[in-house]
Amino acid sequence: MALLDLIIIGAGPAGMTAAIYAKRKGLTLQLIADSVGGNVTKTGNVENYPGYKSIPGPQLAALIKKQLEDMKIDIKLSRVAKLEKAGDYFMAMAADGTAYEARAVVVATGSKWKELNVPGEKEFRNKGVSYCPTCDGPLFSGMDVAVIGGGNAAAEAVMDLIPMAKKIFLVVRSTLKADKVVVDKIQSSDKVAILMGYTVDRINGKDFVESVDIVSTSGGERKTLNVGGVFVEVGLLPNVAFAKDLLEINDRGEIVIDERCRTNVCGVFAAGDVSDVPQKQIIVAAGEGAKAAMSAFTYISTQKC
Amino acid sequence: MALLDLIIIGAGPAGMTAAIYAKRKGLTLQLIADSVGGNVTKTGNVENYPGYKSIPGPQLAALIKKQLEDMKIDIKLSRVAKLEKAGDYFMAMAADGTAYEARAVVVATGSKWKELNVPGEKEFRNKGVSYCPTCDGPLFSGMDVAVIGGGNAAAEAVMDLIPMAKKIFLVVRSTLKADKVVVDKIQSSDKVAILMGYTVDRINGKDFVESVDIVSTSGGERKTLNVGGVFVEVGLLPNVAFAKDLLEINDRGEIVIDERCRTNVCGVFAAGDVSDVPQKQIIVAAGEGAKAAMSAFTYISTQKC
Repeated sequence: MALLDLIIIGAGPAGMTAAIYAKRKGLTLQLIADSVGGNVTKTGNVENYPGYKSIPGPQLAALIKKQLEDMKIDIKLSRVAKLEKAGDYFMAMAADGTAYEARAVVVATGSKWKELNVPGEKEFRNKGVSYCPTCDGPLFSGMDVAVIGGGNAAAEAVMDLIPMAKKIFLVVRSTLKADKVVVDKIQSSDKVAILMGYTVDRINGKDFVESVDIVSTSGGERKTLNVGGVFVEVGLLPNVAFAKDLLEINDRGEIVIDERCRTNVCGVFAAGDVSDVPQKQIIVAAGEGAKAAMSAFTYISTQKC
Repeated sequence: MALLDLIIIGAGPAGMTAAIYAKRKGLTLQLIADSVGGNVTKTGNVENYPGYKSIPGPQLAALIKKQLEDMKIDIKLSRVAKLEKAGDYFMAMAADGTAYEARAVVVATGSKWKELNVPGEKEFRNKGVSYCPTCDGPLFSGMDVAVIGGGNAAAEAVMDLIPMAKKIFLVVRSTLKADKVVVDKIQSSDKVAILMGYTVDRINGKDFVESVDIVSTSGGERKTLNVGGVFVEVGLLPNVAFAKDLLEINDRGEIVIDERCRTNVCGVFAAGDVSDVPQKQIIVAAGEGAKAAMSAFTYISTQKC
């Protein structure tokens, strides 16, 4: 296999935008991804992407995919098992055994939302169950909702929902580990009820979520919260296993990058939800993908980090 | 006038995306801009915006503007004459004398491309005259082109064009001030001819650019370069006059921000081409606008920088 300029791993908004930019820069490239569209394909209506007032996630992903096809950008559908440095270049090994070699790499493999794994969670996804308050918060204006989790993501979800929801139940398994300034704010809001020491047992509804059953971790006491929405904020799992020996990873499991999407390894760039950029948003990931491709182009042209 | 949560100054991709995000977060806001759409409205076809394979710049700007109108986001059409800190909040004075006060500010006023101010430049804009090689480079595949300028922007334009153009004339008025690693690369390419000590006299053509006349700065010697494209890379002028007493500005005239779009002033954020983010691209500006709005929301919620 000939040495390429660039390997892009992942085909969500970040990886696909990186591919558009890299191709237009005249780079030879291979895009490798286990699926196309990333979390966008699991999203209901996207209503915060500039240029589309409202578009189903899968449709937005399909439009960008089509854009790549029209540009003759090939997508190798495979998981990357391993990314390694091999002398002056990098080697990405696909799970099917095919090896790709390139001068530079953009890692854009995204993140998975951690799930509760309780009955009702999958059934009501995008029907009241959401993982992204910034994306979906406005759908729950004037409604009662539950937020599940005890870290910063959960606390920030509550902050996001205070201006729009009617009442917010924050269900915390053990302790509230969020930053004090946010916790203070939440505790001082009369819209928020904090339920400490509870886990979710199941999510109920007909066409949409109608309630969530919670159980106390100590005595097994059960409660039913009548809510129209459940925000699951128990963390993200960045997809970095294949690169964890090569790249610097922070304590949230994200790849550490600088403002030009450079990782700790000269020639490897990262973009989107897999990186430590805190805003896990489609438009942000797309912008970061463009940045990463432009940085990779500069690196390939000059061999300078 | 009531105290607002947020003032957004500028309505290019960064400012409009910031408005979408801020509104959805439930913030009270005022968008103030002297025009809507920014440089996008001066662009021909945009072919690197994920979600649109090819769309005229003015049409993309109009779509996003419509999105804001549908969200009931008001745009005050006025230049901001002054941005000041006034106690715990900020005051933006519109040129018509109206004052707006808010807890936080997003500055997204963009940048103007410096022009040559020679005959033909305006007439052939988007008809062979371009300011953005990343945007328009692929339109000139296999053609002879001229790049005007002697700094890093000009040198990077040449680097961008090497993989696609047939021949590139780099027209430099005095000295080549770009980084050595890039200059070396340019000088070693047999596609590039560097013409030192020349300025542009006029750009010629019928429907599209056909040639550019240059004159030597020493003896007035004239040359005509037969090219189908002219990239004007003589610098950017960030629109920061109204904020230069308040915000830290770098030597390129850009507002210095960190990775969360925070400026040196707690409560003021910046995004897009007016900031020191080096990639002056629509999709990057949009992503940065979302980041800035989310950072502003966090600041307003917690009063913590």
